[in-house]
Amino acid sequence: MTRPPARSDRRSDRRSRSGRRDRPTPPPEVENTAELPMHPPGALVEGGLRVFALGGISEIGRNMTVLEYDGRLLVVDCGVLFPAEDSPGVDLILPDFRAIEDRLDDIDALVLTHGHEDHIGAVPFLLRQKPDLLVVGSRFTLALVAAKCKEHRLTPHLLEVAEGARLRHGRWDCEYFAVNHSIPDALAVAVRTPAGLLLHTGDIKLDQLPLDGRLTDLAGFSRLGDEGVDMFLVDSTNADVPGFVTPEREIGPVIEGVFHRASSRIIVACFASHVHRVQQVLDAAAKHGRRVCLVGRSMVRNMGIAGELELLQIPDGLLVDLDEAMTLPDDQLVLVSTGSQGEPLSALSRMARGDHRSVRIRPEDTIILASSLIPGNETAVFGVINGLTRLGATVIHQGNAKVHVSGHSPAGELLFLYNAVRPSNVMPVHGEWRHLRASGRLAVQTGVPEDRVVLAENGVVVDLVDGIASISGRVEVGRVYVDGLSVGDIGESTLSDRLTLGEGGFIQISVAVDARTGRAVAPPTVSGRGFSDDPKALDVVLPLIEDELSRTENEGITDPHRIAQAVRRVVGKWVGETYRRRPMIVPTVIAV
Amino acid sequence: MTRPPARSDRRSDRRSRSGRRDRPTPPPEVENTAELPMHPPGALVEGGLRVFALGGISEIGRNMTVLEYDGRLLVVDCGVLFPAEDSPGVDLILPDFRAIEDRLDDIDALVLTHGHEDHIGAVPFLLRQKPDLLVVGSRFTLALVAAKCKEHRLTPHLLEVAEGARLRHGRWDCEYFAVNHSIPDALAVAVRTPAGLLLHTGDIKLDQLPLDGRLTDLAGFSRLGDEGVDMFLVDSTNADVPGFVTPEREIGPVIEGVFHRASSRIIVACFASHVHRVQQVLDAAAKHGRRVCLVGRSMVRNMGIAGELELLQIPDGLLVDLDEAMTLPDDQLVLVSTGSQGEPLSALSRMARGDHRSVRIRPEDTIILASSLIPGNETAVFGVINGLTRLGATVIHQGNAKVHVSGHSPAGELLFLYNAVRPSNVMPVHGEWRHLRASGRLAVQTGVPEDRVVLAENGVVVDLVDGIASISGRVEVGRVYVDGLSVGDIGESTLSDRLTLGEGGFIQISVAVDARTGRAVAPPTVSGRGFSDDPKALDVVLPLIEDELSRTENEGITDPHRIAQAVRRVVGKWVGETYRRRPMIVPTVIAV
Repeated sequence: MTRPPARSDRRSDRRSRSGRRDRPTPPPEVENTAELPMHPPGALVEGGLRVFALGGISEIGRNMTVLEYDGRLLVVDCGVLFPAEDSPGVDLILPDFRAIEDRLDDIDALVLTHGHEDHIGAVPFLLRQKPDLLVVGSRFTLALVAAKCKEHRLTPHLLEVAEGARLRHGRWDCEYFAVNHSIPDALAVAVRTPAGLLLHTGDIKLDQLPLDGRLTDLAGFSRLGDEGVDMFLVDSTNADVPGFVTPEREIGPVIEGVFHRASSRIIVACFASHVHRVQQVLDAAAKHGRRVCLVGRSMVRNMGIAGELELLQIPDGLLVDLDEAMTLPDDQLVLVSTGSQGEPLSALSRMARGDHRSVRIRPEDTIILASSLIPGNETAVFGVINGLTRLGATVIHQGNAKVHVSGHSPAGELLFLYNAVRPSNVMPVHGEWRHLRASGRLAVQTGVPEDRVVLAENGVVVDLVDGIASISGRVEVGRVYVDGLSVGDIGESTLSDRLTLGEGGFIQISVAVDARTGRAVAPPTVSGRGFSDDPKALDVVLPLIEDELSRTENEGITDPHRIAQAVRRVVGKWVGETYRRRPMIVPTVIAV
Repeated sequence: MTRPPARSDRRSDRRSRSGRRDRPTPPPEVENTAELPMHPPGALVEGGLRVFALGGISEIGRNMTVLEYDGRLLVVDCGVLFPAEDSPGVDLILPDFRAIEDRLDDIDALVLTHGHEDHIGAVPFLLRQKPDLLVVGSRFTLALVAAKCKEHRLTPHLLEVAEGARLRHGRWDCEYFAVNHSIPDALAVAVRTPAGLLLHTGDIKLDQLPLDGRLTDLAGFSRLGDEGVDMFLVDSTNADVPGFVTPEREIGPVIEGVFHRASSRIIVACFASHVHRVQQVLDAAAKHGRRVCLVGRSMVRNMGIAGELELLQIPDGLLVDLDEAMTLPDDQLVLVSTGSQGEPLSALSRMARGDHRSVRIRPEDTIILASSLIPGNETAVFGVINGLTRLGATVIHQGNAKVHVSGHSPAGELLFLYNAVRPSNVMPVHGEWRHLRASGRLAVQTGVPEDRVVLAENGVVVDLVDGIASISGRVEVGRVYVDGLSVGDIGESTLSDRLTLGEGGFIQISVAVDARTGRAVAPPTVSGRGFSDDPKALDVVLPLIEDELSRTENEGITDPHRIAQAVRRVVGKWVGETYRRRPMIVPTVIAV
């Protein structure tokens, strides 16, 4: 894996040696998938199993994998991706459904491995296109999906499953396995088809002392390994991290220690779905005679569900609402809040800026960020930490105490998984390229032949035929943006304009000309936004515009579009030479 | 430090116990400086030493500290800050010179501790205001300053000093000490005044086996400690990191190991001023029979200077230019490049995207990012790593190998510094709030009384009087933005517009009305940029605009400004309800 074959003929050598024949049109031979051009795969060969991702491979988020066998489809997960700085103003990014849009009726079921947003967040958007889709998942997962669908005014068709269950969804023979992750009730799914057995881990880790005693079913995976796993889709998010995850239950004593030392108010921020983390906070609070106030809509909703399902044990009278919380002595209160990623509108960010409605941070306060720092959020999170620290509070976070552990298996645990499953073919999922390659290397180290590791980013189609997985083509998988109420009307052109405007603002020139003569009938006006704080900055360009308008008039140009082009050129040249900046130049010429 | 006094009277208690009298108007009593309002300090009390920062405290970058004694000023460092996402489109952020702008003739010297951009980058901007300013620094520092000033067509008045030197600049008695950092020839400066002895570390670490044998002069600091350091300004960048920095020379063998295993081309990216890091790469290259090509303007320039000053030992014939490099066999070549922070226009980013002019990444390539990952750059840097990995290359970086060590003392080393210096008063510099507090805690642990630790962010004025440092007021320190050729014309209003435009784009409406009647003389036009990819998205709002124009006409409104306001309101309401988005609404009404 470290050094993929340098010559494409090496790969085809292996292929011929492996004895496959009668393949549909093969894709162009390439050194690796990064160079694979768009090449729609041919029809799936009879008896073959097809796998491709509409999201979640070559990125972390919007996980969605499609399986095809004998004309029927099974979808695993349907999540969202939270946008980074390259997608300004966007709320969410969805998987690209285009490749299955014409075949929605072929889908027998949508299987959800667990309830995190990057696995269930896009379900309502898929249900809008196919409201009667069968949605399969564990109890907690489905409760979260139901709550989400309710907000979208959708009533999904749900089928609850639990670990140990083996049942058919249409053409698909599915078996479910308990998986340990940073949310309760996560599942892996094994799919048996005549083409072979496929195991998809979902998100996974191997905490050997899980708080709820629900271990990842490594024994079950081993039995599958005995039976023979032909295709292993494995969570590779932490594949480049060495070692093992610290047990979640080691966080409890750390949190307790902080409670023990804190003499005044405590605020804990963590993910709104991390039931076990919140449980440890509730336990520490109960032990230290503190009441707990949950803050943030998703925190309140999710913990309510977890409480109802008895996944969260809430001692009677422990919880208080914010109004009551504000009447309690500081040393009898814990706030448990969202906002651990520095989201600017969250309660915690408001507190750090000193503009929260009811909570004013004081030097006696202790704040615990019991969460990871998701890459890309550093500036925001450190901004919150600095804001709280500036106000004198003590801030405990991942960087100075063991108050968070990851939910994904690092390299050491992945070796256990590969060795238990002993797969014939491996397709790393859930990860950026650096993670996929690292996972592939681990597979090879455990004995998977190099050419049986398929690094297939979103859209790359992998067919399992005669027990051998290989790439058969590539479908287009773009990014589908949600901004406000609208889905999909924002694309690369709008985002590119936003980036330009965000970097340099714009200069607007308005001109009214006589439709017949092209002569300006009023003095042109020029104004800028996001260009300069100096109100007179643009005055000097007005004479240049007037000169240009005289020129176009003298040349008999009356077409508003051509006049606008001329104005744009003059102003663009001036601003480039004078300021060395590139604002958007927006001329409007009205013919009257 | 962990728990600053909760009541302001506690602090004033200590103050009165410490026996100070005759202070100028004291600032309002506050719990900590975060709550200190703007409060210009009174005139400095006779015999007192004043210290304040125009940049570099409560942030990392644009370091600039001003000392005042008996009406004269000494400035230490004058650097730039590289903008984060809250300052879109900006090239650089300068220290705010306003507090000293009227007193430039009082400055006896600008002392530069070392040649990093965050310490020298703003020198040309200060020299523009005072071209005859005496600039003091070590040989390498001044060579870098001279090169920078040449680009700005400035000829600075330079005075070279070396460790061990003690000399006067005007009123100021300065002694220089060798300091180890991630650039050669760094200095600390001790300033003796009748008010007391001040020691400013500049950037510092305590590598005990430095590559050039030039240790931080801890013995000198100890002698100062014996003499009595009244005010200690200490680099706190890494104060919240436990332990000690790994010696730079442990990087060499790691790089060598990579060279040993690499069978094809090697590309090393690192900071353009990290002479010792480059030295280790050159040594490894020479040993493995590879030639070296330096890539990137600043890399070529700085290593040229370092070579001339014999700080970098370049074996004859080792260096080749890019054209020659492209003719060499891959296993005989190393490229040493800038771009380690994922800068989108850098050579390395282009390579990762596959659009570099002459270098195309291949699976056999090995890339080493021998640099830190500066917070805020994660998305860009991981983007580069993923791009290179996707193309099949092996990427070695801080996350998977020991190819970088920091240039700043972490907590363990800061304890050595505090214990050597034994300061009476401490003012942590170079750091965000989380670092300042951590540094203050370390000071207290070594025996500095809690109330002698002054956490004074930018602009907070600290006076040393009768051996006791305390806050005497606060001057305004804003951010001065450089964008293109212009300095200071961009402020919060422009940046706020850029953020709005970058998030939501704009919708522009143009209307020409009869100046006399207010009647539209041509149909209104509406267009958006950064709003939607759908070209018809805005068509539906046109009738609403036309209705509104009829209304204003019927009401006899002829003022273009009022008509524009009415149009803005209608379009803003429509877009909010229809899309739940907030583009900027830009109506232009021309009266003809």
